Amino acid sequence: MSRRYEDLAGPDIAERVSAESILLLPIGAVEQHGPHLPLAVDHVIAHETATAVVDRVGDELDIWQLPTISISKSNEHAWSPGTLWFSAETMLAMLRDLGRSIATTGCERLVLLNGHGGNTTILATALRELRLEFGLKTFLVHPSVPPAYGGESTEDELGMGIHGGLHETSIYMHLRPEHVDLSKAERKVPEGLDSNEFVKFGGAVMFGWLSNDFDPDGYIGDPTGASAELGARLFEANVAHLARQMAEIKTFDFGR
Amino acid sequence: MSRRYEDLAGPDIAERVSAESILLLPIGAVEQHGPHLPLAVDHVIAHETATAVVDRVGDELDIWQLPTISISKSNEHAWSPGTLWFSAETMLAMLRDLGRSIATTGCERLVLLNGHGGNTTILATALRELRLEFGLKTFLVHPSVPPAYGGESTEDELGMGIHGGLHETSIYMHLRPEHVDLSKAERKVPEGLDSNEFVKFGGAVMFGWLSNDFDPDGYIGDPTGASAELGARLFEANVAHLARQMAEIKTFDFGR
Amino acid sequence: MSRRYEDLAGPDIAERVSAESILLLPIGAVEQHGPHLPLAVDHVIAHETATAVVDRVGDELDIWQLPTISISKSNEHAWSPGTLWFSAETMLAMLRDLGRSIATTGCERLVLLNGHGGNTTILATALRELRLEFGLKTFLVHPSVPPAYGGESTEDELGMGIHGGLHETSIYMHLRPEHVDLSKAERKVPEGLDSNEFVKFGGAVMFGWLSNDFDPDGYIGDPTGASAELGARLFEANVAHLARQMAEIKTFDFGR
Amino acid sequence: MSRRYEDLAGPDIAERVSAESILLLPIGAVEQHGPHLPLAVDHVIAHETATAVVDRVGDELDIWQLPTISISKSNEHAWSPGTLWFSAETMLAMLRDLGRSIATTGCERLVLLNGHGGNTTILATALRELRLEFGLKTFLVHPSVPPAYGGESTEDELGMGIHGGLHETSIYMHLRPEHVDLSKAERKVPEGLDSNEFVKFGGAVMFGWLSNDFDPDGYIGDPTGASAELGARLFEANVAHLARQMAEIKTFDFGR
Amino acid sequence: MSRRYEDLAGPDIAERVSAESILLLPIGAVEQHGPHLPLAVDHVIAHETATAVVDRVGDELDIWQLPTISISKSNEHAWSPGTLWFSAETMLAMLRDLGRSIATTGCERLVLLNGHGGNTTILATALRELRLEFGLKTFLVHPSVPPAYGGESTEDELGMGIHGGLHETSIYMHLRPEHVDLSKAERKVPEGLDSNEFVKFGGAVMFGWLSNDFDPDGYIGDPTGASAELGARLFEANVAHLARQMAEIKTFDFGR
Amino acid sequence: MSRRYEDLAGPDIAERVSAESILLLPIGAVEQHGPHLPLAVDHVIAHETATAVVDRVGDELDIWQLPTISISKSNEHAWSPGTLWFSAETMLAMLRDLGRSIATTGCERLVLLNGHGGNTTILATALRELRLEFGLKTFLVHPSVPPAYGGESTEDELGMGIHGGLHETSIYMHLRPEHVDLSKAERKVPEGLDSNEFVKFGGAVMFGWLSNDFDPDGYIGDPTGASAELGARLFEANVAHLARQMAEIKTFDFGR
Repeated sequence: MSRRYEDLAGPDIAERVSAESILLLPIGAVEQHGPHLPLAVDHVIAHETATAVVDRVGDELDIWQLPTISISKSNEHAWSPGTLWFSAETMLAMLRDLGRSIATTGCERLVLLNGHGGNTTILATALRELRLEFGLKTFLVHPSVPPAYGGESTEDELGMGIHGGLHETSIYMHLRPEHVDLSKAERKVPEGLDSNEFVKFGGAVMFGWLSNDFDPDGYIGDPTGASAELGARLFEANVAHLARQMAEIKTFDFGR
Repeated sequence: MSRRYEDLAGPDIAERVSAESILLLPIGAVEQHGPHLPLAVDHVIAHETATAVVDRVGDELDIWQLPTISISKSNEHAWSPGTLWFSAETMLAMLRDLGRSIATTGCERLVLLNGHGGNTTILATALRELRLEFGLKTFLVHPSVPPAYGGESTEDELGMGIHGGLHETSIYMHLRPEHVDLSKAERKVPEGLDSNEFVKFGGAVMFGWLSNDFDPDGYIGDPTGASAELGARLFEANVAHLARQMAEIKTFDFGR
Repeated sequence: MSRRYEDLAGPDIAERVSAESILLLPIGAVEQHGPHLPLAVDHVIAHETATAVVDRVGDELDIWQLPTISISKSNEHAWSPGTLWFSAETMLAMLRDLGRSIATTGCERLVLLNGHGGNTTILATALRELRLEFGLKTFLVHPSVPPAYGGESTEDELGMGIHGGLHETSIYMHLRPEHVDLSKAERKVPEGLDSNEFVKFGGAVMFGWLSNDFDPDGYIGDPTGASAELGARLFEANVAHLARQMAEIKTFDFGR
Repeated sequence: MSRRYEDLAGPDIAERVSAESILLLPIGAVEQHGPHLPLAVDHVIAHETATAVVDRVGDELDIWQLPTISISKSNEHAWSPGTLWFSAETMLAMLRDLGRSIATTGCERLVLLNGHGGNTTILATALRELRLEFGLKTFLVHPSVPPAYGGESTEDELGMGIHGGLHETSIYMHLRPEHVDLSKAERKVPEGLDSNEFVKFGGAVMFGWLSNDFDPDGYIGDPTGASAELGARLFEANVAHLARQMAEIKTFDFGR
Repeated sequence: MSRRYEDLAGPDIAERVSAESILLLPIGAVEQHGPHLPLAVDHVIAHETATAVVDRVGDELDIWQLPTISISKSNEHAWSPGTLWFSAETMLAMLRDLGRSIATTGCERLVLLNGHGGNTTILATALRELRLEFGLKTFLVHPSVPPAYGGESTEDELGMGIHGGLHETSIYMHLRPEHVDLSKAERKVPEGLDSNEFVKFGGAVMFGWLSNDFDPDGYIGDPTGASAELGARLFEANVAHLARQMAEIKTFDFGR
Repeated sequence: MSRRYEDLAGPDIAERVSAESILLLPIGAVEQHGPHLPLAVDHVIAHETATAVVDRVGDELDIWQLPTISISKSNEHAWSPGTLWFSAETMLAMLRDLGRSIATTGCERLVLLNGHGGNTTILATALRELRLEFGLKTFLVHPSVPPAYGGESTEDELGMGIHGGLHETSIYMHLRPEHVDLSKAERKVPEGLDSNEFVKFGGAVMFGWLSNDFDPDGYIGDPTGASAELGARLFEANVAHLARQMAEIKTFDFGR
């Protein structure tokens, strides 16, 4: 049986979606990822990951997969023709509208599965807005897996393989091999950042950046060693990891 | 070769998309369509129609298919739990953001392929906004085919098979037979409207309506005689019709 | 007795305006109409037409005429100094505010009489917004009369006399002869559009246009043969047509 | 020759409206004024006053009269069914849109003639916005005349005849005698305010009020002694006063 | 005991703040004040004045002092690098948010103490918005004292010492002597305005101005004779004056 | 010499603030912190920390301290009367306005020092907006110190002393001892969260929460062991830590 929300008929909602259900909304992007990867990367990964998670534990956990939001807030790539992006205000309005819609279903749990790092802070902001305005329990998860859960080390990328790097490229080679051209990939690691103690990705000091602040080619990482095999391993680990997250979300009640 | 915009890499945009290209944006909806059809109808039809058109004439006319916008302005179905909808203001903001993004590609022609009638007026409004603000040539097309181009007559529906009726149901039976349950379909034609001279669908007087203004089940038409065969014929006619529209769009220059 | 809403005192509203009443809001524009017509054309025609309709059937149908909105969304003429225009967002905000205000009167029916074609899609959008948010029954009518109701044929204009053409000019010569200078009028028909099958005014493909996309003078049609006599006939036919529309609106209830 | 802006044709703007011209925008309201006066009072007075001023000095000072904005920010009367009002945000958006439009004419001076006291602060705010954003020289005038310029004393109203009181009622009896019903008028002076030193109309402390904060009938003043004769004198004095203001506006240049 | 609102704990609000209390919100600005005064002038004066008033009558009148809003709508100084300013729309949004927050306390009276003249009209607008939307009784007061209450005459400044002039400079010399450099001050009185009958500060005609419309140095008045002694006298008079205003606000009930 | 931005005169900005300078904007909140702490906690800590950092390294690094924003986005405490909060949209508008203002100074680096955790995601979002729209280099820092830099262990609080807990209470006892009432403090650790693997503070799954989701008293942590001595140590460590962060920010250039 389909676990896709959109395959339900209107009257099914009241019967099939309940306070025990979880709605899962994949969110991606259409944005430049360097010359070796297509614009689609983030939403394809979000969509495929969500689908695999729902295939695995959707019935058990009563998850309904919402249609993937393909385009989102990618303004760090606004400099690159072809990037499609919504402003922060538009994204907030979209998320409020979705929260308002979803609250009518009786479902209490909404999980955003975000495939685009540039969305993380605005989505995290929206978690609270939807909780306050519509009473939803809201969650934000990401497809990528930390090393502790099976991810390969990215020590070689100095921990900065954040956009079009080894992992993302490998996963895309696994999912859409025909759309990756590794011959165009180079090492694009902003080595100069590595000596920073605070102002760096994941450092104590967050900083505003555009993807061409580091290098005119606009990708960050070293995809040269990417492979479909590594991608397959990472993808499987991600799905397994998310399945466990969804199980915990299922019964989460603020520690009460 | 893929004609999907999202399968291009960032640097491909400058090389592949030009002032001669056409960008095609399918727009659907996630909204109730009665008990016999799923929420997905409009965006599946928009997406499948766009894909078939691009398969047929994409290379010839240099069309690039943008990712389908699945959720849009469905507030005539706001009463029905499960309908997902963006407000008019949110839709306008999304369309402006997309116009701003697309204008950076150098492409001059943007075609909206709208699968949801409830969007028509806001999209038609946006055509002018994007022309004025970003200099784009903008167009709005619809998947449905008028009788003159091969569509079956809907005289039996009194011309009111506008939401979940014979044609839409048949096309969905062709595209996604497993998601149609014709046993739940009834005739839902607001016969009382037929005697009106002006205030009716397509009449001289437009009127504001919600889909449950006519009948609490919220669909409008008579899907009881729907069939995949009819759907296949209609779909093919629609695609052929749109292919000819796209050819005319290709060279349109305001009659100059 | 006055049928103008604004001539009522505050306490009269509760006594005189009821669920059986109809509120009629004329909406015009202040925008260039070529060298032969003044900026006022659209709102003068909307106002005079509304006034004549109310004079004819206002008492019978319990219609109250709201003050004319003179300025609206004329951004297709933004290129022409002197055009006054509100953005789409401003127009939506104004219409929502009016709907909110009108809903307090107890009147259930609001008719927009739109004299400016550039407003049609945004007003049609607002019909649904006001129905959903304030429970109003909303309608959109236009002053122009189709040939079937007494309008002269515009075959000579190839059906494209849409802005400052034969009919509009004639009606204005009837209403305000001192403000028309036919000596400055020329034939401005975008003949090249006529051979289009789809992309044309009223064609299957809607397109975004600015009024100087066709000709730098910015009017569309052939006013050279205009006359006050033709204008008088058209105006009378329009009023008669609208009176019948208002009668149907009076009892309209979604075919229930 | 007409001095109404709207009677100009598009191409006339460049020829007739120049940096030496003044654009005059009357702004009124549609709002309750008690049982003795109609909703139209403010915009009729604004319109008639503006028209009389332009008749008197329009040619001399090169003034162009814009179409009257009938509906504005009347939310102090939101409690009274029938009042039509735009929110503060909508009014600001309308004024910005108008400023943007007017700046294209080459005219440098825009005068708002405001007939509704409830607009004064938002219009005064807009003066600066339009100066900063569009480089316009902006002015705000009011039709009412202070005692020093021929206005009758309102000592009897304790200086609080601010809405539907002696002066406004008299002027309306002069302008539209058929729409005033003095038999319904009573004395409605909030005597309790008179003993205040600071918190009162025109006092050192401004305060937020709704028109029914003082009395459920929502008018403020004592119209019982109103007469068309007094109204005629006041109106003439107002026009004379405004004509002198316009002359000063004509050459105003910040004291430089 | 502290009378600062922010020094209360959350649960104290219900116990300490009641319908009998007054909330006092000082609002300042960070904007150029000429070469002799720092950007801080307006918010320092608003803050210090509010503090002195609360010290004097806070216990007696049950006043709670809200944290000072330092930055506000200073766009008349947008030309001067360093001025920090919120747009009119942002200010309205901030004030609405504060009104919504304050309405939860049970306090019914909110007094805005405005130290920046450029805010007056937008704050006066907000008084009504907060009264209508949240039921608050709202008031707007200013720190400056009129001559009748002890202020020195500014006849020498022709009544135009409105920004960085004699009084403001003197008060700042009293409050922050180390931040005034009188050696840089000159007489900057737009003498040309003085001969105007209507278009001048406080005249019958309001006008839109930027602070560099009069003089490139952007201050208006004659601070050359300023002294801390005069400032001390003015400040004391202001505080005394405001204390009396607050007492009247305490029992104000629209004259009922 | 003062390092406060607001103590500069307008013309000083061009002379004193340069591309080498850093602007530091402290941002706090006015929100409930349980019964033992006042509403002011976050903005007092942000302000005092910023001041101490500037005192220490302001001259060396050419830092200018902007006036503290006291009120911000505290809607997780909207349930608690007295909390003052701006919506996400208002905050974004404020930050854009500030970015626009600051970009006129020629300064290239803006550091937000955020004392309220509820702001972190919206401020982090704004970092990119201000970089893209105004070209600023933007940074976000926090006053709290991680254990590695001298912070005491909060193992006893299970890592959940996030609002009104041991550290925050101690620092406030150091800064404002008279405003802390430890007798009202209890242990409020949501122990149930501790067994979660993913959905917890700092866990892989972010979740939307309101401060009363965990406990009706709305604070989270165990302040019972707080002391001014611990506060003094933590504050000093925080300042030292931030001074080092500012030094790195001074020369940060995206690793180029």
